[in-house]
Amino acid sequence: MHVDELETPVPVVDLDKLEANISRLQAYLDEHKIANRPHIKTHKISEIAKMQMDAGAIGITCQKVSEAEVMADAGFTDIFIPYNIIGEKKLARLMTLAKRINVSVTADSAFVVQGLSNAAQHAGLTLTVLVECDTGAERCGVQSPQEAADLARTITQSPNLHFGGLMTYPSANNLDDYVNETCGLLKKDNISIERVSGGGTPTMWNAHENKEVTEHRAGIYVYGDRLTMRPGAVTLDTCAFKVFTTVVSRPTVDRGILDAGSKSLSMDLHGLEGYGYICEYPEAKIYNLTEEHGHVDFSACEKKPEIGERVTIIPNHCCVVSNLFDEVVGARGSQVEVIWKVAARGTVT
Amino acid sequence: MHVDELETPVPVVDLDKLEANISRLQAYLDEHKIANRPHIKTHKISEIAKMQMDAGAIGITCQKVSEAEVMADAGFTDIFIPYNIIGEKKLARLMTLAKRINVSVTADSAFVVQGLSNAAQHAGLTLTVLVECDTGAERCGVQSPQEAADLARTITQSPNLHFGGLMTYPSANNLDDYVNETCGLLKKDNISIERVSGGGTPTMWNAHENKEVTEHRAGIYVYGDRLTMRPGAVTLDTCAFKVFTTVVSRPTVDRGILDAGSKSLSMDLHGLEGYGYICEYPEAKIYNLTEEHGHVDFSACEKKPEIGERVTIIPNHCCVVSNLFDEVVGARGSQVEVIWKVAARGTVT
Repeated sequence: MHVDELETPVPVVDLDKLEANISRLQAYLDEHKIANRPHIKTHKISEIAKMQMDAGAIGITCQKVSEAEVMADAGFTDIFIPYNIIGEKKLARLMTLAKRINVSVTADSAFVVQGLSNAAQHAGLTLTVLVECDTGAERCGVQSPQEAADLARTITQSPNLHFGGLMTYPSANNLDDYVNETCGLLKKDNISIERVSGGGTPTMWNAHENKEVTEHRAGIYVYGDRLTMRPGAVTLDTCAFKVFTTVVSRPTVDRGILDAGSKSLSMDLHGLEGYGYICEYPEAKIYNLTEEHGHVDFSACEKKPEIGERVTIIPNHCCVVSNLFDEVVGARGSQVEVIWKVAARGTVT
Repeated sequence: MHVDELETPVPVVDLDKLEANISRLQAYLDEHKIANRPHIKTHKISEIAKMQMDAGAIGITCQKVSEAEVMADAGFTDIFIPYNIIGEKKLARLMTLAKRINVSVTADSAFVVQGLSNAAQHAGLTLTVLVECDTGAERCGVQSPQEAADLARTITQSPNLHFGGLMTYPSANNLDDYVNETCGLLKKDNISIERVSGGGTPTMWNAHENKEVTEHRAGIYVYGDRLTMRPGAVTLDTCAFKVFTTVVSRPTVDRGILDAGSKSLSMDLHGLEGYGYICEYPEAKIYNLTEEHGHVDFSACEKKPEIGERVTIIPNHCCVVSNLFDEVVGARGSQVEVIWKVAARGTVT
């Protein structure tokens, strides 16, 4: 089937570009002897995760237990969940998972460590726990190498837990310093840092600059989007993920309305201007989204689209877009080759 | 089961409030002799649509053909799709639907009218088409009563189409004038305007002020959210929809991180400050969302939450939130009474 026969709105992945993106990052990380542990939250598709493993990844990263459950069901046996897992039921599910496959997690507080230790004792297994470090992103994470060392000691002393190293997101310039300082604080206790897990697509080509990093978790690199094009990590040419849409109204000379709104593109901005990039009309601006309508200002475009015309959009943030769709189309050139189920869509628990 | 046993993040509907919201709008519209045609894009749940029909709705509104297909499968027999439906496959699906149930649609251009007429001729049926009017929202819609009258004439003259009246969103103050002027222009052709369909939750309690309106399409009124609380159409007390979340990190004195991010709450802002209202900490500000993390500033709160504490959030825009989840919980007080499938989730074609 030709892609133009697909009903819109529909997310389409360029398979040639997808494969090249997977190979390119793997080659770079191989060259620098950094393990590749891709984050599958971007695509949530087991077939793409398998392509990443086949290329040389050592395992995958999932953000929630439910996401990891879907991937374990699909046959993946080494999953990192860099999240504070809290609550009796979630911990029970984590232990069920840890009995089936190789799982590691993170913690940034004694509260989380205590819960993991209790659950692991109850399940009769040993769980690997890394310390999440805030290296400037100001999300989760301990606030200093001193806090990291303290929590590492707590993990080491907690029954049925194994201290697995340090994790941060995104990898920051000061990561080596953070790791070395923590390492120094732990030396007298004979605690070693076996894994240093960095992450992020925007800074992926600089991963080797932090010599202490042992593995990298990138998610978006497989698809690409406007957020990762901004720092140049992905280019217009390497971007593999687009949403095909149709112009359904041209109420005024300058205004156009697309059949893709916030339920197809999401309202993620993160500092970008407009809600997506229209490939055929680069000067156009998607200035607003309502649920099923994309509001476009075509005033800056010399040629303007007709009603019924199809236009393709590079979304601002592909991860949240693929999470909106049950299926994603894979195309080779203009021919549909595969339709993938977004198996882990909606897995937020 | 007590709601506190639910794993977070999870959307929970207060059934008492839901029922009251459904009754309240129905009573108001009944009093003013305005037909109620609720928009089910907010909840996408057939059981709630049935509650709306049982309360007295004359039919339902869906935004896309695929959404209407799900509702037709669930037994609904009168569906309005106020959208420009374009493309061979979509039109074929629309005709299949129109053979099963009573369907009406809209158009704002001769292009759309032509497509509908061709499809209806091919299917051998008569389709009711209303003219979408832009009464100030600047989305789709013809730009003046003159254009509305012209398109009404085009519909009337198109084989297998029936001109059904005028539609706008949201209902504006000038709606009566727009309708009356269009009516005047059509009088000499003996074309009458049988339906005037207005819509929106923010202005729903003013629907009666436009005397020409024959039906009202409100969506959010069943749940309520911050967007509809802003103009006072919904209050904190009548809001029936909340997302239960857990505090998973307290990395600094003021910062808290929730287990609900943009894949649970969406990044819709529409001019609001922050990405949701935390009921237990009204002074807190959800200042950012990443995919699985809600970033909260608790500095303005005298008492601050502990790690592991559960907090409930009124989202900015409930329609896009319910579209993120496969299931929504219905609770009576603190007891779970029902778990609904969001049957029409992800129906964007």
